[in-house]
Amino acid sequence: MRAFLIVGNKAFTRPFNLNDIPGAGRMDIMCRCVSQALFVSHGIRKDVEVYLFLLGQPDPPKCVLIRGSEVKRLAPDERNIAGHINKALSFDVDENWKEVHSGVYIARKKLEDLLKDLCKEYEVYYMREDGEELSKVTFERPLFVIGDHIGVIKEVEEKILNFAKKIVKVSEISLMAEQCIVIAHYELDKRAKDLKTLKNKDIRLF
Amino acid sequence: MRAFLIVGNKAFTRPFNLNDIPGAGRMDIMCRCVSQALFVSHGIRKDVEVYLFLLGQPDPPKCVLIRGSEVKRLAPDERNIAGHINKALSFDVDENWKEVHSGVYIARKKLEDLLKDLCKEYEVYYMREDGEELSKVTFERPLFVIGDHIGVIKEVEEKILNFAKKIVKVSEISLMAEQCIVIAHYELDKRAKDLKTLKNKDIRLF
Repeated sequence: MRAFLIVGNKAFTRPFNLNDIPGAGRMDIMCRCVSQALFVSHGIRKDVEVYLFLLGQPDPPKCVLIRGSEVKRLAPDERNIAGHINKALSFDVDENWKEVHSGVYIARKKLEDLLKDLCKEYEVYYMREDGEELSKVTFERPLFVIGDHIGVIKEVEEKILNFAKKIVKVSEISLMAEQCIVIAHYELDKRAKDLKTLKNKDIRLF
Repeated sequence: MRAFLIVGNKAFTRPFNLNDIPGAGRMDIMCRCVSQALFVSHGIRKDVEVYLFLLGQPDPPKCVLIRGSEVKRLAPDERNIAGHINKALSFDVDENWKEVHSGVYIARKKLEDLLKDLCKEYEVYYMREDGEELSKVTFERPLFVIGDHIGVIKEVEEKILNFAKKIVKVSEISLMAEQCIVIAHYELDKRAKDLKTLKNKDIRLF
């Protein structure tokens, strides 16, 4: 299993206009992260979960979870993914995960509570530009925490660091969040012992 | 310099509805390729050109060129990029490049003529799943030719192979076109002799 948690510093916590996805607190970044985390050519990675941690107005924090093993009728384009997020944001939330569509969940979670839960299942790695080179780190069930265009503010970062096993970086160049995800998959795929098994078992073709 | 040429087998050659970008012959793939080829975090790669070779209805072939060194008011979201492509498609075209916006050009080019021109400036590499591992190939001014969700049909492939120096692959897993682009950049960035120079000289920050 692999997971990604993306911090959307301004990403809206109410439904938004699908004709202006960037205007919803740069929800376009969230959409591209979902797309690049879950999709391969004509298939979805069943072994991946994506957590969007939304901190924008008017009702933060909310977390949207999309599971590759369960999600249906998801396409890789931004508007399709935004439609799913939008629908999730139209529901009332509490601290329990509510399934709003096959494989799409929403809850109100404090970051520390969310990470505490996720720590039971994953090793937490925080992506920051001064970290260890990802290509040289050994991973077992990693959860990568990544900031959006703003990065991660100090107060949020402190919470992440309480749970993080390591800080890792993907490149000397500052890349966009979705590019970090593509490269993390690439590096992890390379070292998968049996890529045929990975292809057959962990990717759902459509 | 690096360049990418993406073959859009069904990508429309007339203006389309920005509310249904995938419906325009999977123009969403073209948009994501432009985004991932040109953008880094808060910056644009000045040393990159993207060629979208559009073969869809009603008036193929048309080629849209976007130059990282010149383009203005481009954002990484699909709809913004689609807007630029849409505008380009609203112009009459002939075999000469016409600049329709800073750094955005359109022309009607036969693939063989386009590749013949590009060969003067670039070494052509064709991305296909049975190629040599990209991470093990040495590149000098590469142009990567990549198919969309359909791939590249035989007739088009023959033309590409006439100009290609090598066939290269990025992964054992079939990836989406934009993911291949991200990985090509990643591998080439890694071996850039002086990453600081690359960052300062070849990336335009905004």
